[in-house]
Amino acid sequence: MRKIGIKDIDYISMGSTVLGTGGGGDPYVGKLLAKQAIKEHGEVTMISADELDDNAFVQPIAAFGSPMIMVEKLFAGDEFIKAFEMMESYQGKKIDAVMPAEAGGLNGVIPFAIAAEKKIPLVDADGMGRAFPRLEMGTFTLHGIGASPITQADEKGNRNVYHTIDNVWGETLLGATVIQMGGNCAIAPFPMTGAQVKKASVLGTVTYAQQLGSAILDAKKEKRNPLSSLIQAAKAIELFSGKISNISINTEGRWSKGVCEIVGLDAYKGSNMILDFQNEFLMAKVDGLTVAMTPDLIVLLDAENAEPITAETMQYGTRVAVIGMQADPQWRTPAGIELAGPKKFGYEEDFSRIEDLNK
Amino acid sequence: MRKIGIKDIDYISMGSTVLGTGGGGDPYVGKLLAKQAIKEHGEVTMISADELDDNAFVQPIAAFGSPMIMVEKLFAGDEFIKAFEMMESYQGKKIDAVMPAEAGGLNGVIPFAIAAEKKIPLVDADGMGRAFPRLEMGTFTLHGIGASPITQADEKGNRNVYHTIDNVWGETLLGATVIQMGGNCAIAPFPMTGAQVKKASVLGTVTYAQQLGSAILDAKKEKRNPLSSLIQAAKAIELFSGKISNISINTEGRWSKGVCEIVGLDAYKGSNMILDFQNEFLMAKVDGLTVAMTPDLIVLLDAENAEPITAETMQYGTRVAVIGMQADPQWRTPAGIELAGPKKFGYEEDFSRIEDLNK
Repeated sequence: MRKIGIKDIDYISMGSTVLGTGGGGDPYVGKLLAKQAIKEHGEVTMISADELDDNAFVQPIAAFGSPMIMVEKLFAGDEFIKAFEMMESYQGKKIDAVMPAEAGGLNGVIPFAIAAEKKIPLVDADGMGRAFPRLEMGTFTLHGIGASPITQADEKGNRNVYHTIDNVWGETLLGATVIQMGGNCAIAPFPMTGAQVKKASVLGTVTYAQQLGSAILDAKKEKRNPLSSLIQAAKAIELFSGKISNISINTEGRWSKGVCEIVGLDAYKGSNMILDFQNEFLMAKVDGLTVAMTPDLIVLLDAENAEPITAETMQYGTRVAVIGMQADPQWRTPAGIELAGPKKFGYEEDFSRIEDLNK
Repeated sequence: MRKIGIKDIDYISMGSTVLGTGGGGDPYVGKLLAKQAIKEHGEVTMISADELDDNAFVQPIAAFGSPMIMVEKLFAGDEFIKAFEMMESYQGKKIDAVMPAEAGGLNGVIPFAIAAEKKIPLVDADGMGRAFPRLEMGTFTLHGIGASPITQADEKGNRNVYHTIDNVWGETLLGATVIQMGGNCAIAPFPMTGAQVKKASVLGTVTYAQQLGSAILDAKKEKRNPLSSLIQAAKAIELFSGKISNISINTEGRWSKGVCEIVGLDAYKGSNMILDFQNEFLMAKVDGLTVAMTPDLIVLLDAENAEPITAETMQYGTRVAVIGMQADPQWRTPAGIELAGPKKFGYEEDFSRIEDLNK
């Protein structure tokens, strides 16, 4: 158990954005909402999963929708509390602790805003250890936990409860309504017991995000190389370095699908990287050869300061570095690869581990 | 209070399809489900609204979606019970009586299936006195009654609760999810008290439908002219008679929008009728002059037997008659015309009563 204050949020947000691999929502909005809530209601108590009572009622909370739209259509802020309270009133019991559903600039820190306002602890864990573009793509699903009932709230005051037959249907119905709602909403999916959280989460994600954030921000403060610092902290592999030469994006439902092309510079001069994304970066090829693929993490960084760049804020001409990180071991099982591996996104390639692709 | 048995369903279904003005769902499926339930569980007690306790919990039940799809994607039958039971469990109390949300081949009789299975009475009233293409287009809305909470169930087992800020949002969110569900689902909207039903319904709709059905079916049995019999019973105006010469349909979301062209025969020889529809028939013009418009009722009938034809079963070459009926007085108020009049569907014309258009 430890206290999380306003300064910690900068680190956690930064590291969560690294883990968000291009998705997980806009870090700016996430930091703002989390810091405001802590300022108003006081620091948040973060506990590890093993501090949870097995019967505790734990609720993941997340922003849901199109990250592209979230940049322009801001959250009012109280959607998250409304989704939280709808779950409590629907279940007829108090939520004992919240947790992030996924890592990401927004989704990694928004649960701190709820924890602060509701004065309940936040669990140092999440359901992905990264971000993914679909609700069902979580370790919770791998452990057979249903997303339902899911509550949903928008800034206008609409609030709904979904009981879907499986987690794919949860994604389908939330995806259909969030478009009508203007592209974003708050959701409270996967209500769980403490025992389920211990078994089905990626443990320690928030602390890990804070370490990654610190690797970037402290290095900068201490005039060390932030990229080397992050690579070391994340046990990452440097995949490429260059300049963004082309970005093409298509919006399909709540997803931004597209390709980012990077022309190599320095050691990579003469080479070319193609980075596919669907909210999150899913596949990286250099000169036609795959160097990293989902569920391993592909992270796009600003080469100047090693700060992560989300897919919706990529800009032509930016000097970037791309690194790869190993996914949580749960994702590298046959079930994990089936749920969120390359074939799930329409690629014909079998999954290969990043360390094997870059020997 | 009176008992409704299997034979009554034929009459009620036939008359409800007349009132459905092209929409309200497929009569065949409605009759089948209602008769099956009555056969299995016994006759239904139908009560008038004034027999309701003011505090009674009354629940309208309806099929929702695209009538075009409902013809092909059949209901499993238990969606309606699931939506009903979801409402009971959500509200934490028993439903005392059901009622139709709208008249129509399916929606006018499906509540009998629920009433039979649940052994509760059905109220002789509905929320339109006809059918309309949108959830919010009901007399309930005119009286300020919220559609929320709305429960929704599909044949797969998905079941949801919507709390929307207004009834238009109810239509929007249900409309978005029903497409994902394959085009049809069951809903339980507008949970009401007995006092609200007395004030905000179109009273006696089921009995009226039964009378219209009897006007058609008994005339046929007794070798009288069913069309004259129906026109007399409905105080209707004959608008046109001829042969369907062209049908164009576009599907937009859950709506089938289009135009049916009829070339005149006999007394109407040399004339042409254009019938616009959006699930329901909304506007009828003869040789360019409007002869009937929403919210008044425009009914397309088979000229042979005076049986109503729904928009999704219209066929090229059919000999048809078109009649017009006055809408319930609630629809002819400024508020009623604003909610479901011609301007609401994009026409520039002001509403004119059918009796004024056909002096």
